[in-house]
Amino acid sequence: MDQRPIGVFDSGLGGLTALRELRRILPGEELVYFGDTGRVPYGTKGKETILHYACQDVSFLRTFDPKAIVVACGTVSANALEELQRENDLPIFAVVTPAARAAVESTRNKRVGLIGTSASIRSGAYEREMARLDPGVRVTARACPLFVPLVENGRFRPGDRVAELVVEEYLTPIKDAGVDTLVLGCTHYPLLMDTVRSFMGPNVTLIDTGAVCANHAADTLRERGLLAQREKGSYRCFVSDSIEDFTHLASIFLGEPLEGEVERVEIWRY
Amino acid sequence: MDQRPIGVFDSGLGGLTALRELRRILPGEELVYFGDTGRVPYGTKGKETILHYACQDVSFLRTFDPKAIVVACGTVSANALEELQRENDLPIFAVVTPAARAAVESTRNKRVGLIGTSASIRSGAYEREMARLDPGVRVTARACPLFVPLVENGRFRPGDRVAELVVEEYLTPIKDAGVDTLVLGCTHYPLLMDTVRSFMGPNVTLIDTGAVCANHAADTLRERGLLAQREKGSYRCFVSDSIEDFTHLASIFLGEPLEGEVERVEIWRY
Repeated sequence: MDQRPIGVFDSGLGGLTALRELRRILPGEELVYFGDTGRVPYGTKGKETILHYACQDVSFLRTFDPKAIVVACGTVSANALEELQRENDLPIFAVVTPAARAAVESTRNKRVGLIGTSASIRSGAYEREMARLDPGVRVTARACPLFVPLVENGRFRPGDRVAELVVEEYLTPIKDAGVDTLVLGCTHYPLLMDTVRSFMGPNVTLIDTGAVCANHAADTLRERGLLAQREKGSYRCFVSDSIEDFTHLASIFLGEPLEGEVERVEIWRY
Repeated sequence: MDQRPIGVFDSGLGGLTALRELRRILPGEELVYFGDTGRVPYGTKGKETILHYACQDVSFLRTFDPKAIVVACGTVSANALEELQRENDLPIFAVVTPAARAAVESTRNKRVGLIGTSASIRSGAYEREMARLDPGVRVTARACPLFVPLVENGRFRPGDRVAELVVEEYLTPIKDAGVDTLVLGCTHYPLLMDTVRSFMGPNVTLIDTGAVCANHAADTLRERGLLAQREKGSYRCFVSDSIEDFTHLASIFLGEPLEGEVERVEIWRY
């Protein structure tokens, strides 16, 4: 048993899709969320910048003495996980490995689609992990740099013509490749799930990386006897930009009204 | 005469449209450009964050002992200019005032359209300045939060279906208002000029804020006897993210191959 909180972070709002899943499967845990809204997006930035930001994000979360950290950001998971794990002596869970495993277990025809930010796709991290798990899987990958701006601007509702056109443009080569599984390699993308599903059709399994990562973290903590013993946990949110702008969209990401106060943190000090 | 350089900055690539104009009209000047590509975009961020970033940008440029600074960013101009001018004892030129003057002088039917980032439109700075110059001008303003991501991702060429659809969506209410002048209140937007012109029609005058700001700065420096005496000046570029990603798009913004080296700067240290 470990009553300490779990830290969760993302470049912005996307990681709230993982927070939501953690709350659902581990209702007794205390959670601390940090969204780096003052520097979002990460996915169009270079590896060096991503690493610098991710280290600060972890340093901030460590001030809460967490028992584990969930990197609820595909870009950080694909570009900075090894460094974060090397420099921090606590469990750090990320989206790449559990998402790759879920995709390899899901595919029947060995054709998997992968979408993510430019930095995630450029890293090759998801492909390497899938190839390690099953060298026979053929991956069709595509960077979708406009998805995060669309989602962060609230443009994810079915019927949004711009979102539909961008989905069509990015996903056409993946659909044409005949994949039966598509990894949404960024925690922002589940917000576009309905539009993506409508384009890809009902026979393609969509892997929600935030959710699989949350489940992987929960399973591991349970195995190690590190879950909290508490009737009902809560969560706190911190952001690096305006609190108002975050609060507005966060409830949509969480699927429920935001609980408690949101606080602003000067992340560049960490 | 003043042989010192002129500093120019923007959140990313957009300000290069002002740098290009400065080089055209003041070929003898030395120019130092900083693009905060590691924290772009500014226009979706809150005022406090924008101010913090802008102060660091100016601090960095001041290490070159410039004779003046050009804020080639609509968002900073609209949200942080007063503070920057109060805290720095050198001429700081920004886009809002010259763009507002150009619009008021251009309009015949007293109906002006204004587009900019969310933070620029929210500030009301352009409208205040136009009302001060001519209270009879009616402004129809619209935030265009997807324009900067489109441009920073190279999606500005005529025929880009997504860019065309976004332009149509944002500009329809402005076109419907019957404006004869449209202020492109962000230095990224001139890259979308052809698509915007094609939608608005040939009878609407487009105000390129980067260019009018460059001309305003040049006129003022000339009046004060602060221009350099030099056959041919040059420019240096600094960015806060990957040099490769910047170099690729910068030549398109400049309309010519990038001259000299680009250097990376850790802007958070300033």
